[in-house]
Amino acid sequence: MPELRQNIITREWVVIATERAKRPDQFARKNISEEILPARDTACPFCPGNEIMSTPDILRYDGEDGWRLRIIKNKYAALVSEGGLQRTMHGIYRSMNAFGYHDVVIEHPEHDKIISLMSTGEISLILHSYVDRYNMLREDPRIESIVLFRNHGKNAGTSLVHPHSQIAAVPVVPFQVRSRVDIARSYFDDHGGCMFCRTLNDEVSSGERILCETSSFASFIPYAALSPFHIWIFPKRHSSSFEEITADEIDDLARNLKTVLMKLYNGLNNPDFNFSIRSIPLREKNSEYYHWYLSIIPRISISAGFELGSGMYISTSVPEQSAKYLQDIRVSF
Amino acid sequence: MPELRQNIITREWVVIATERAKRPDQFARKNISEEILPARDTACPFCPGNEIMSTPDILRYDGEDGWRLRIIKNKYAALVSEGGLQRTMHGIYRSMNAFGYHDVVIEHPEHDKIISLMSTGEISLILHSYVDRYNMLREDPRIESIVLFRNHGKNAGTSLVHPHSQIAAVPVVPFQVRSRVDIARSYFDDHGGCMFCRTLNDEVSSGERILCETSSFASFIPYAALSPFHIWIFPKRHSSSFEEITADEIDDLARNLKTVLMKLYNGLNNPDFNFSIRSIPLREKNSEYYHWYLSIIPRISISAGFELGSGMYISTSVPEQSAKYLQDIRVSF
Repeated sequence: MPELRQNIITREWVVIATERAKRPDQFARKNISEEILPARDTACPFCPGNEIMSTPDILRYDGEDGWRLRIIKNKYAALVSEGGLQRTMHGIYRSMNAFGYHDVVIEHPEHDKIISLMSTGEISLILHSYVDRYNMLREDPRIESIVLFRNHGKNAGTSLVHPHSQIAAVPVVPFQVRSRVDIARSYFDDHGGCMFCRTLNDEVSSGERILCETSSFASFIPYAALSPFHIWIFPKRHSSSFEEITADEIDDLARNLKTVLMKLYNGLNNPDFNFSIRSIPLREKNSEYYHWYLSIIPRISISAGFELGSGMYISTSVPEQSAKYLQDIRVSF
Repeated sequence: MPELRQNIITREWVVIATERAKRPDQFARKNISEEILPARDTACPFCPGNEIMSTPDILRYDGEDGWRLRIIKNKYAALVSEGGLQRTMHGIYRSMNAFGYHDVVIEHPEHDKIISLMSTGEISLILHSYVDRYNMLREDPRIESIVLFRNHGKNAGTSLVHPHSQIAAVPVVPFQVRSRVDIARSYFDDHGGCMFCRTLNDEVSSGERILCETSSFASFIPYAALSPFHIWIFPKRHSSSFEEITADEIDDLARNLKTVLMKLYNGLNNPDFNFSIRSIPLREKNSEYYHWYLSIIPRISISAGFELGSGMYISTSVPEQSAKYLQDIRVSF
């Protein structure tokens, strides 16, 4: 029997369409002939030796044989930090100049490196760089939200294959973020506690949908996952904003994230995916009711008219079955 | 300079990324070799002669040489109408059985017919059938919302090519719908009028983004379109629910919709798209502040980590330029 489940964080209902559900392995990417990439591409602006092709370094982390990671301004930035912030009304419409920052994190010198196959040390460095840049960006009082995200593969919106993530700092609080903070506050008002902490507790004690538990993080497939193999990674320590993470926690998150990404890589044949880190709006730090988390969305299904016309989702995978499938995939590193 | 614009209906901000904006014609579908489809396919469950392969007719409209349109139950329904409606709590999680209706509207007997190329009479019949079925479904007191939608092409989630739309009746109000009704009510409280009527007025008098104006409808590209070539069609007469449409208005909407679909077909080379009809929740009819509309979303861009991680959008097209491009495409029928 198909089931309707309510996603506790978005409050949206999702139809778990058992009548048309697929087996977990049917979501694996088909064996399409992969382009073999070189470790260095002379035409790639992110490759070592081509630094002149990109904007100057904002942050740079060096190793013994050159840089290990660079953060630069996106050459085709969607937001620009020149000039002030100006709001305008056009009749009933509101606009402003797209003031902000739009950075690229060049995660690794090797052109063909896949994040799922990086070492935990390398993933740790990426997370460290996020925190460093986050702390710089929050100094600008005009910035209200920072969006950390990563695209992997064409279906996830990647245009340049060289491994990179992006950081966008915007002068508004996205309406969706506002709405989710309201949901969390309302839960806090009703129950006197954080709904993310409660979810984490319940998930860890049942274990049914847990993919990886490390000392400071737990990753799991949500009870009402909006799309197949959607994954959340929650910090165990209550904290509303990502940059409050400690150095030890970063290493632990790197282990957890790598485990999950390798499970996806092995179990679903290197699927396209997005991940993003969600925090409370910058100026509302230290909240009791909101809890930051990392969200991974494999791009293995297409949202159609039903989703676009209602905001509800139909998912053709059963969260417990997807979780079991990934639990059974052992990874070691 | 890139610009941030707020979408008045969703209240979400969208970045109009002028630095990376494409020319309107660059959004056209590349000349991929199209599969030539037969007018009748012996393996297609929706083709005349194969009625036995599908579930029995719920509604059927006949012409001189057989049926013109049929509404049937979706064979792989995401919602089922057998049994009652049962809500359950699992710890903090809410679920219910996916009670509801999930129908398919087989729009035309010809297997290879493309909706954009149907006659206005044929499109009119589709809209009439929506109203008829809508009125049947609202009789079931357990149904709270009806989602009318159509997928066209693979990127829009189509699996069967035979022309069809879908009607889903669900026992909940989607959270997104609730949220949008709240936005409209709040506008009404502040301004004493309907924000859709106001938008329509402003759009029609400026004309800058208008694609087609007929006696009862206006179609336009929203000021803060979330994605390239997103189109809204608003009825001029204030009405909160689609099924209140009159027979004359249906014919007029068919003309307007056909004009817009043909402009997309000619201008963007038969792009994949979804459309859906959005009404107020069933039991809140006759609202002063909500206004039904039809939304068309061409699937010509990919939402990436930024969109999934924030709810905000980055669009690489400028609404006024897209509108101008489609305005210049003359269609006649």
